[in-house]
Amino acid sequence: MDLFFNPRSVAVVGVSESEKNLGRRIVQNLQEFSYDGIIYLVGPRGGTAFGRRIYKSVADIPDQIDLAILLVPARYVPETIAECGQKGIRRAIIESSGFSELDEDGREIEARLVEIAARHNMRFIGPNCIGVINKLSGLSVPFAGLKDIFESGKISIISQSGGVGLDYLNVMASENLGLSKFASIGNKLNVDECDLLEYLVRDDQTDIICMYLESISDGRRLMRIARGTSKPILLHKSNVGELAREIAQSHTAALSGDDSVVSAALEQAGIARFDESDTLVNSLKILPMPRLEGNNIAVISRSGGHAVIAADACEKAGFKLTSFPEPFLRQIEKHFRAKVIRLTNPLDLGDLFDFDVYTRIVDETLKLPDVDAVVFLHTYISAVEREQSRAFIVKLEDFSFTHGKPLATCVSTDGEEMSILRRSLRHPVFTAPEDAVSALAMLRDYKHDAVEEPRLPPGELDRETVGAVIERCLREKRPVLLDEALTIIRAAGLDVPAFELARNNAEAAAAAGRCGGPVVLKLVAPQVSHKTDIGGVLLGLEGETQAARGFEILMQAARRAGVKGEPRVLVQPQVMAGTEMILGAKRDATFGPAVLAGAGGIFVEVLNDVALRVLPFDERDAEAMLRSLKAYPLLTGARGRKPRDVEALRRGVLAIARLVDAFEEITELDVNPLMVLHQGQGAQVVDARIVLA
Amino acid sequence: MDLFFNPRSVAVVGVSESEKNLGRRIVQNLQEFSYDGIIYLVGPRGGTAFGRRIYKSVADIPDQIDLAILLVPARYVPETIAECGQKGIRRAIIESSGFSELDEDGREIEARLVEIAARHNMRFIGPNCIGVINKLSGLSVPFAGLKDIFESGKISIISQSGGVGLDYLNVMASENLGLSKFASIGNKLNVDECDLLEYLVRDDQTDIICMYLESISDGRRLMRIARGTSKPILLHKSNVGELAREIAQSHTAALSGDDSVVSAALEQAGIARFDESDTLVNSLKILPMPRLEGNNIAVISRSGGHAVIAADACEKAGFKLTSFPEPFLRQIEKHFRAKVIRLTNPLDLGDLFDFDVYTRIVDETLKLPDVDAVVFLHTYISAVEREQSRAFIVKLEDFSFTHGKPLATCVSTDGEEMSILRRSLRHPVFTAPEDAVSALAMLRDYKHDAVEEPRLPPGELDRETVGAVIERCLREKRPVLLDEALTIIRAAGLDVPAFELARNNAEAAAAAGRCGGPVVLKLVAPQVSHKTDIGGVLLGLEGETQAARGFEILMQAARRAGVKGEPRVLVQPQVMAGTEMILGAKRDATFGPAVLAGAGGIFVEVLNDVALRVLPFDERDAEAMLRSLKAYPLLTGARGRKPRDVEALRRGVLAIARLVDAFEEITELDVNPLMVLHQGQGAQVVDARIVLA
Repeated sequence: MDLFFNPRSVAVVGVSESEKNLGRRIVQNLQEFSYDGIIYLVGPRGGTAFGRRIYKSVADIPDQIDLAILLVPARYVPETIAECGQKGIRRAIIESSGFSELDEDGREIEARLVEIAARHNMRFIGPNCIGVINKLSGLSVPFAGLKDIFESGKISIISQSGGVGLDYLNVMASENLGLSKFASIGNKLNVDECDLLEYLVRDDQTDIICMYLESISDGRRLMRIARGTSKPILLHKSNVGELAREIAQSHTAALSGDDSVVSAALEQAGIARFDESDTLVNSLKILPMPRLEGNNIAVISRSGGHAVIAADACEKAGFKLTSFPEPFLRQIEKHFRAKVIRLTNPLDLGDLFDFDVYTRIVDETLKLPDVDAVVFLHTYISAVEREQSRAFIVKLEDFSFTHGKPLATCVSTDGEEMSILRRSLRHPVFTAPEDAVSALAMLRDYKHDAVEEPRLPPGELDRETVGAVIERCLREKRPVLLDEALTIIRAAGLDVPAFELARNNAEAAAAAGRCGGPVVLKLVAPQVSHKTDIGGVLLGLEGETQAARGFEILMQAARRAGVKGEPRVLVQPQVMAGTEMILGAKRDATFGPAVLAGAGGIFVEVLNDVALRVLPFDERDAEAMLRSLKAYPLLTGARGRKPRDVEALRRGVLAIARLVDAFEEITELDVNPLMVLHQGQGAQVVDARIVLA
Repeated sequence: MDLFFNPRSVAVVGVSESEKNLGRRIVQNLQEFSYDGIIYLVGPRGGTAFGRRIYKSVADIPDQIDLAILLVPARYVPETIAECGQKGIRRAIIESSGFSELDEDGREIEARLVEIAARHNMRFIGPNCIGVINKLSGLSVPFAGLKDIFESGKISIISQSGGVGLDYLNVMASENLGLSKFASIGNKLNVDECDLLEYLVRDDQTDIICMYLESISDGRRLMRIARGTSKPILLHKSNVGELAREIAQSHTAALSGDDSVVSAALEQAGIARFDESDTLVNSLKILPMPRLEGNNIAVISRSGGHAVIAADACEKAGFKLTSFPEPFLRQIEKHFRAKVIRLTNPLDLGDLFDFDVYTRIVDETLKLPDVDAVVFLHTYISAVEREQSRAFIVKLEDFSFTHGKPLATCVSTDGEEMSILRRSLRHPVFTAPEDAVSALAMLRDYKHDAVEEPRLPPGELDRETVGAVIERCLREKRPVLLDEALTIIRAAGLDVPAFELARNNAEAAAAAGRCGGPVVLKLVAPQVSHKTDIGGVLLGLEGETQAARGFEILMQAARRAGVKGEPRVLVQPQVMAGTEMILGAKRDATFGPAVLAGAGGIFVEVLNDVALRVLPFDERDAEAMLRSLKAYPLLTGARGRKPRDVEALRRGVLAIARLVDAFEEITELDVNPLMVLHQGQGAQVVDARIVLA
């Protein structure tokens, strides 16, 4: 990947003498950013531009080229790439549009392009993108003319959309955030976000990675890379709903997936998801600061109102405002001119207008062992306190690092002064107390350490039984029947009450007799997927007579529903009352199998209370998943209820995970309900449904 | 109130020759804003400043004074106000600090101040504030030096905190929002937010009112004023949690109330609550636009990525993106240079760089009858398209008003260009697609029309019975007993099953016999408020023998719990199973009585699912309150359940409202649970508790 960011020579293909030519902007950008390699221009009509020859073909360039940048009409792209390949160029950025994001013709061009690039062993970024920027090497190839208004820094950006990428660049420039590398990836036909992420994770010049994606190419790889690094990764994943789908497809040919799977996967991999640029900005401002090692905040404010707002924000974010120790208060009390305010945390500086004293107070506060972070709220009128304020804020900049504690400075002044301030400071400042506090909360909650990929703990799974059932269903090209689904679930290690299949009322009666207690009768037929809807379930039948009569009733229901062949009836002891839960699994196109757990009954009906984890995950993940349910307190014994067998539920989650991990043929699975009994008594499967690919 | 904003002459009291004197800044501000009246300076040491005489006392001023502005130490304020009164001044702004927000001495000074002002029939704003600004008259008296960087406009501000008020002013200036009047009210000892709100509601120069409050002086008056106007009122109410309480008290002497009551009351009165300045800014930008009369949005974008983000935001906000009609698409299709994008809504302008065509497209789109609002997302690089973009955005400004539909323009460019743009446009622009869309959602959802105060519908309330019980309890200085609470609730019109009080086991047995079915026995004693905790409730007793034995068991429980005297036992038929709900009421210090309703059982335990309305409210409010409960679908028959008697529940809510409205002595009331039976079968009170003042 490094040749994309540090090529010794580039060829800009698609340049002409016309003022309107977009390729010229690429050349302008390379010059504006002082690119440290050699630039060649290529265009079919030849001529000159920027005091350089425009070669008619890359073949004519009398030098070796590390990177070609293409901005020629889509239909010419494959042959141009072929020429580049013949010339020995191994990297290209294709900025042209008009590919699969437009129509079928474009899709065909893409297919040819992929084939030609492969033949020449070439990697390329795009098409339909604005290319890359490397602030350090001066490589800057977007076809939108840019000014080099960026600070050098360690934040790198990967954006599927060029426009949103430019927006991030604007935000960084105006907020004083330092840029390292930028890549717009468009249709990501060859190089995708994972290739670039892998590169940036290893890049010494990158500390924080920020991404905008409309689709995720390989979810599991993304998770693996993210887990392997301690560098913070922030992701804005859009294209979430129905309305965005069409425009995203026509924009970067992005297909949207199941957003709940995306969210779960990102959280598991330690990727911070954000969905508005304010959150991004606040995160980028706070992440370079020292880690927040505790939960105690001190708020120091020139405005009492802002102190109140900050205190509310601290409470909402779960922070504590530690009381200041008496000696500290006596120390700072001397500085106040008139005794017109009370000294508390938040500390209102009131009528104290001495900037040296402010500096000392902040310094002393950061030294307090019970203070883990400081928020300083500075309000000023630029016409009055411009010089003093600027000098003071510059002084504050270093405090965070000398004390090894985060110090969030929040400035309230007029807009013009604010933008001057932003340009002149080395570190960013906040503009609202709520922002400063929520950024600190982000710093507290988002700990990104490199971790091993979790492993599914080993456990009971009767592969032979499961394999045989699946093989039979696939061979007979029919859905998995209820008794087969229960057999699979039981083979996975869940507790399924004994059941028998009855072909006639005599068999039903005999089976009920063997059960002893009350039984349940369920219709089993390939055509019936929702048996309750057609009256295919009978509960609480007692004795042989009732069971025999039940059999007949189910047969009538089957005939009414138009069931063909000879349906059978499953006879099973009725499961004891417990807390109704549901377990399930589905297979996501990009993230692979995911397991979900939720509360059954009214909780799922009214509140959609479900949680989800992408594989692989371990016991701790399963535990966290269950804890995240709103209904969790019902399991652990809220308000004097007897605690339920949460351990059995967790075992069930892991059993389902092992099952769908081992058998790729299973695309959907539901255990609904699973009755979770009292602690130590396990959990029993009442009903199950399995769908194969 | 008008004299506070349009005085013909002002006296600034507390001015000296010293450069450090804060009073001088007030004079500077008056000059900077070109105050259109006469300015007099007053200070005990006399002298001159700004080419004016400093009078030693207001008495010495040879002219009539409409408004005095005081910035003298707190201890001198009462006598200075007395001097003002003697001089015939009827209005004052007291900016000094050091009153009740500091200590007890300050509180005493306040008491004297109030008394003296009343004697002279004087109204004053403050103390502990930064005063008022009237952009139109040029009256600007904050002691913080300001530059007149404000556009004239129709937004007025009331802020309890001076610092937060200045912050709002800064935001307005940098976002191009036009200012009318500003008032900082501090400790609001005489003039409060309601006095000012009432004035601004009638003020021709004010269209939108924006407030920051740490406490609400008179909630019911606030609601009355808000209901009486169609001008939008936006309120940031802080001082919500525990942490803010202390600093708010020392800042503006504000006490915090029950925040859930505040939120309910504001919603009922049509006041839009916001809690971060971003929301405020977006609201202020969109509110002056034409009303949004439907739910159909068209998004037009120069950047495909922003179009995707806007589409997601539209979906989240519940907007529809209407399909563009074919003739319209054919019409605009011609303008595109190469066929590289698909035409949809959102419309990606792709490689179309013609600003005249943009103008025509926006114009045509606003004309479409199926489009209720347009979001235009404009991304540009200032170095390349500065002139064209600025001219184009200026053109867009009028479109909204000529077409009578909101047009939200969202600009993404570099920070410097952005601030130039903001200063030069007449109307504000947005900077993020999400902001533009959520502002439109605000415009759709926040309809502020002047309405009559709702009236509690009349209904059954046996005042005599209730009054007698309350009178007896108050006279005997003891809590309301269970049987009395049930008597009151029944007199209010709720359905309470018949009950009898038993003094011994024979009476209990006889009562159970009369009931017939299963009965409930409950211990009744003044010392027992939570009878279940001490085993004071027995359920499902059948027949006389069980009832007699039950009586003895409760007596033992009473003795174990140390109940003195001769407790009695309430005997009652057991209530049928239904959906458990709770009803309640409490009395808020500022908003008066409020009624709450919630789901009982696990919903209240695990989810705290309750809704609340402040009195007075009508049937529609009661209905909306119940609908806002998460558990509401359980009542209306979710997933094949039988619908419950929602009508009876609503009647219950109104009955409780009438009860607490009529009897101020009731400070707390709980009906828990109320069993809501099947439709048409009513709702029955199982248990109730009432607390008197």
